[in-house]
Amino acid sequence: MVVVMSPDATEADLERVVEIVRAAGAQAFVSRGVSRTIVGVVGDHTRIGMLSLRNRRGVADVVRISAEYKLVSREHHPERSVIEVGGVPIGPGFLTVIAGPCAVETPEQTLQAARMAKAAGASLLRGGAYKPRTSPYAFQGLGEEGLKILADVRAETGLPVVTEVVDAHDVELVAEYADMLQIGTRNMQNFSLLRAVGAAPRPVLLKRGMSATIKEWLMAAEYIAQRGNLDIVLCERGIRTFETATRNTLDISAVPVVHRLSHLPVIVDPSHSGGRRDLVLPLARAAVAAGADGLIIDVHPDPSIALCDGDQALCGDDVEKVAELTESLGVLMGRVPATGLTATRD
Amino acid sequence: MVVVMSPDATEADLERVVEIVRAAGAQAFVSRGVSRTIVGVVGDHTRIGMLSLRNRRGVADVVRISAEYKLVSREHHPERSVIEVGGVPIGPGFLTVIAGPCAVETPEQTLQAARMAKAAGASLLRGGAYKPRTSPYAFQGLGEEGLKILADVRAETGLPVVTEVVDAHDVELVAEYADMLQIGTRNMQNFSLLRAVGAAPRPVLLKRGMSATIKEWLMAAEYIAQRGNLDIVLCERGIRTFETATRNTLDISAVPVVHRLSHLPVIVDPSHSGGRRDLVLPLARAAVAAGADGLIIDVHPDPSIALCDGDQALCGDDVEKVAELTESLGVLMGRVPATGLTATRD
Amino acid sequence: MVVVMSPDATEADLERVVEIVRAAGAQAFVSRGVSRTIVGVVGDHTRIGMLSLRNRRGVADVVRISAEYKLVSREHHPERSVIEVGGVPIGPGFLTVIAGPCAVETPEQTLQAARMAKAAGASLLRGGAYKPRTSPYAFQGLGEEGLKILADVRAETGLPVVTEVVDAHDVELVAEYADMLQIGTRNMQNFSLLRAVGAAPRPVLLKRGMSATIKEWLMAAEYIAQRGNLDIVLCERGIRTFETATRNTLDISAVPVVHRLSHLPVIVDPSHSGGRRDLVLPLARAAVAAGADGLIIDVHPDPSIALCDGDQALCGDDVEKVAELTESLGVLMGRVPATGLTATRD
Amino acid sequence: MVVVMSPDATEADLERVVEIVRAAGAQAFVSRGVSRTIVGVVGDHTRIGMLSLRNRRGVADVVRISAEYKLVSREHHPERSVIEVGGVPIGPGFLTVIAGPCAVETPEQTLQAARMAKAAGASLLRGGAYKPRTSPYAFQGLGEEGLKILADVRAETGLPVVTEVVDAHDVELVAEYADMLQIGTRNMQNFSLLRAVGAAPRPVLLKRGMSATIKEWLMAAEYIAQRGNLDIVLCERGIRTFETATRNTLDISAVPVVHRLSHLPVIVDPSHSGGRRDLVLPLARAAVAAGADGLIIDVHPDPSIALCDGDQALCGDDVEKVAELTESLGVLMGRVPATGLTATRD
Repeated sequence: MVVVMSPDATEADLERVVEIVRAAGAQAFVSRGVSRTIVGVVGDHTRIGMLSLRNRRGVADVVRISAEYKLVSREHHPERSVIEVGGVPIGPGFLTVIAGPCAVETPEQTLQAARMAKAAGASLLRGGAYKPRTSPYAFQGLGEEGLKILADVRAETGLPVVTEVVDAHDVELVAEYADMLQIGTRNMQNFSLLRAVGAAPRPVLLKRGMSATIKEWLMAAEYIAQRGNLDIVLCERGIRTFETATRNTLDISAVPVVHRLSHLPVIVDPSHSGGRRDLVLPLARAAVAAGADGLIIDVHPDPSIALCDGDQALCGDDVEKVAELTESLGVLMGRVPATGLTATRD
Repeated sequence: MVVVMSPDATEADLERVVEIVRAAGAQAFVSRGVSRTIVGVVGDHTRIGMLSLRNRRGVADVVRISAEYKLVSREHHPERSVIEVGGVPIGPGFLTVIAGPCAVETPEQTLQAARMAKAAGASLLRGGAYKPRTSPYAFQGLGEEGLKILADVRAETGLPVVTEVVDAHDVELVAEYADMLQIGTRNMQNFSLLRAVGAAPRPVLLKRGMSATIKEWLMAAEYIAQRGNLDIVLCERGIRTFETATRNTLDISAVPVVHRLSHLPVIVDPSHSGGRRDLVLPLARAAVAAGADGLIIDVHPDPSIALCDGDQALCGDDVEKVAELTESLGVLMGRVPATGLTATRD
Repeated sequence: MVVVMSPDATEADLERVVEIVRAAGAQAFVSRGVSRTIVGVVGDHTRIGMLSLRNRRGVADVVRISAEYKLVSREHHPERSVIEVGGVPIGPGFLTVIAGPCAVETPEQTLQAARMAKAAGASLLRGGAYKPRTSPYAFQGLGEEGLKILADVRAETGLPVVTEVVDAHDVELVAEYADMLQIGTRNMQNFSLLRAVGAAPRPVLLKRGMSATIKEWLMAAEYIAQRGNLDIVLCERGIRTFETATRNTLDISAVPVVHRLSHLPVIVDPSHSGGRRDLVLPLARAAVAAGADGLIIDVHPDPSIALCDGDQALCGDDVEKVAELTESLGVLMGRVPATGLTATRD
Repeated sequence: MVVVMSPDATEADLERVVEIVRAAGAQAFVSRGVSRTIVGVVGDHTRIGMLSLRNRRGVADVVRISAEYKLVSREHHPERSVIEVGGVPIGPGFLTVIAGPCAVETPEQTLQAARMAKAAGASLLRGGAYKPRTSPYAFQGLGEEGLKILADVRAETGLPVVTEVVDAHDVELVAEYADMLQIGTRNMQNFSLLRAVGAAPRPVLLKRGMSATIKEWLMAAEYIAQRGNLDIVLCERGIRTFETATRNTLDISAVPVVHRLSHLPVIVDPSHSGGRRDLVLPLARAAVAAGADGLIIDVHPDPSIALCDGDQALCGDDVEKVAELTESLGVLMGRVPATGLTATRD
């Protein structure tokens, strides 16, 4: 932390700041410039974070400089992690596709969508049984019935299952059925839920909050990691801006930025980012080219009757184009398609 | 809903759209223009919402026009509501101040802060026992111990208590101690939690999500209302923008906009909006002048040692200025200070 | 400027940074912490600004700390300025209303609007002869003919004229007719234009860019000031956010923030902020309560046929409510209505 | 345009709306629903745009549906355009790289940067002689001296020149030296300047305003086109969001979205988007994969002493990686590197 004194700060103001810092058990380094004096503060992060110096007499500004996440930081873990989901790897060297319906509606629709997922080159199946919806009058998901459908489809197709959990008290139940627990964008700072999945025996897919900074996203991952679960995959899914041509604005820069800051894998959701079917393939290509470790894509056998987000679900010929693009672009990016050698669960 | 056909749509495209609409039990009205044809869709909202027409051949755009919230809408309830919290009214004709520490730390600090709240003209006490914090290493609140402190301070001062709940499964416990349940900005779309407070026997203070549109905020209120609890007060607390001089950007326009759309009271949080002590009073004045039904303000006996958000807590002489400003401006705006005639609970 | 070294920076990395700083004629102060070393850089701002240290080996971050504007800064000019426009003051102690039509359309419409402006308590007349419009097919203003109409209406009503200039080469012409030159939001960083009005013998109304930070806005003012014209009034007119209920989001906090940073007066445009007639009065009240030095408001005798922004123009009874609100709220805020003692020009 | 009547609109309200529409020479189509009545308005766009219906009694909402740009729209020109710049094509089938220094500083630096540009596979040279800078104290460019340096370097290297123009009255001068005129992000809505380049005999590179919607960007292009110059290339360079890890947020979706809406080529600036050297290559890859027609990249022989934006300039080995990536990815995307067959000017 750096404390910048204002030009008219007195010697007493400065001494008072140094005194507060030292009283908190931290060290203070004073640099006197021609027009400004600066106090560098070094020590235990938690205690320093509690100091309230900004409103002290003579203080012009306080700048924090130390990363506040540790376990997910690349600073402390330079090598990038590979996370396994039901035997399928996500991480450097691999390109992993997760696909499936936005929401589980019926066994038939889910099975058909799973077959489309395979055609798209996916090695993991996505599908929502619990749907957080903006409107209380929209379809809210089938709940446990949906989880059972997913498990049946896994048995049929061999694809491990990624599904969302929305309540800390459902984590145990969902973990029984699913191979990976998804935290949705609206729950990125639902800290009870983060703690609960942090204690679960399943890897976690953590979507970025739609207005979260990259730093806050990594802090949310740190909540999970702190509980002992380091099997975390980050998912960029678009942020909120003034642009209205797309549902959200895919922050493609987040991929290389996160790779610099964290050892965790990062995948991209081109379906929710744009919210438009015609943007899924171009955004998927951009994601792979930017270095993403994978993709998560909505597919639906008949989007026109989908109960959730039909406008963005891939269908028809476009599905196979996902497999093509990941293969050709993947090779160029030094990645092989992830395949589950042992798509069985313990 | 209005479906706009593209210029090159064929008669068959149009017929297919009309067919889909009718198959869903809704009515379709076709208007043929020189260069465009438009289909107006009228009928049961839920069913129409499920139609996925945007990607149909020949469809250029789909525009939704009907408000998706009903119970909280002013359209169906033209008179503005007054909500009672432990005998204290919030709503038209009143100006209600809620004040207290950001976090409950000790009995002494809470009692002192409650006395400051009274000096600020507050008739309700705020204070967090469960704190959702960006960092897992930051102070997370005292939990039930904090709730007990709040109850003791209420007994001492007569101020009913407003406190945050962060987990659906804590609602019952928190409701035992508190007079009003607060939903924080990060939980505005935690739908499990919204449903839980919707079933609780306490009024709810619903903070706006930091990147939520006004419509999404009202939809979140609708989740609560739909469970039977219509005692909801909305709280504008700043939204996220590119500006960095302030923690958030207070969206002052939200006050008159919400008053147009909903019968629920709206209060403003000038402390979290700006995140700076020196902005609290100007923003509080702006809020009252814009028509806010109340204010919620952080106070702390010694902000320099506050465990949470010390930079924005009011202290010293500024506290009484809150009482002065609400009185003088309140009169001008046709409002009387809310006082709890019967600050007792059942 | 503060340079933060990364944890793995070597002694040689540090020395190289210090060397570069010193070579540029600046001073370097090294603080060695337990986990991080920090270099404070002090010296001539321009030269330091040119150093590119962020990509040096061993550098983790570079933080700038010195304000980059000087002439408009309150640091160097603690007392707030009062700017005179055709004899009418804008600044501390006064509440100045500028009103008129968005665009000058006809002599009759402009004269009628000027009379409405007077009824609104305005002491300055606004009106656009040059209109920057998003669409090339929209009405672009009457040009010099519009300036002549404004001058005639000034002669008739005694109201000095505020009008926009959009091209550096029109500044001289516009300055012949106008009492104050307005720089619109789209031109806030049109530096040629800023320099041109900086050399003009008229005060300037500088609107905030719709996506400009407060700092950039003050830097734009510095461009004008640097050319010798310090008669600048800042105008907050809403920023661009994800919210769609309003045309822009009025950043009400900008008023007290700018008052802290700069000695220049700040006024608010409640018409363009919200873009809705029903929001003009609440936002005007909020602006005055937040400490604004004035208001600029669109009025139109018949908004339904306005050639520009009719949706936001005040009309009918609402016009007089502006005068009422500024009077009552103005007194409370310690301000008197600005009146032009000598509404004549040299 | 569609006018949505409110539920309580009377028959007289409806008739008045229809009357206004018809009086303006447009056609009105009334659709009566169970709870709402809708009026479709069709006719001459300009006249309809002037109608102010939103504030009419009984009107709930007004939705515009017709694209407001025509000449740049793909609706009227389905085939994508190829623009030639000094003999070098930009458009479908080609991948065109523009590279060079952010600012022209000296003849040596510019020549060296041009050689780096060639090594990067560029067929066009960028370089600023007029620099729009946030601070009046920052380096503002060499002006005409810089233009001469660019012309000399073109003679030496054969690379046609792309350079920014910031004032309508410099267009003629800059067009004498340059092969393509660049409009910078801050001038995207400087309509005088747009009109001036619209009348110039040179192709135009139109950067997106940092807070412009895609629609506004296309409207700005329409200003240029309307003056007779249809040789326009669009450049996405990042938009402003709340994220602070990057200078701007590259809106990668803008590439496919613009390709849908307009026949004009779109290139991407990965240097200004991220503002960080380490993001240039990943963002360049993402751009090509998303379908961009080209790239514009900052290079500098010694970024640490650059007078402008040194933090984002490529240097060293990374330069050749641009050529590699465009070649390998270009082939995959069905594009060949653009080379100037006749890199001479008339």
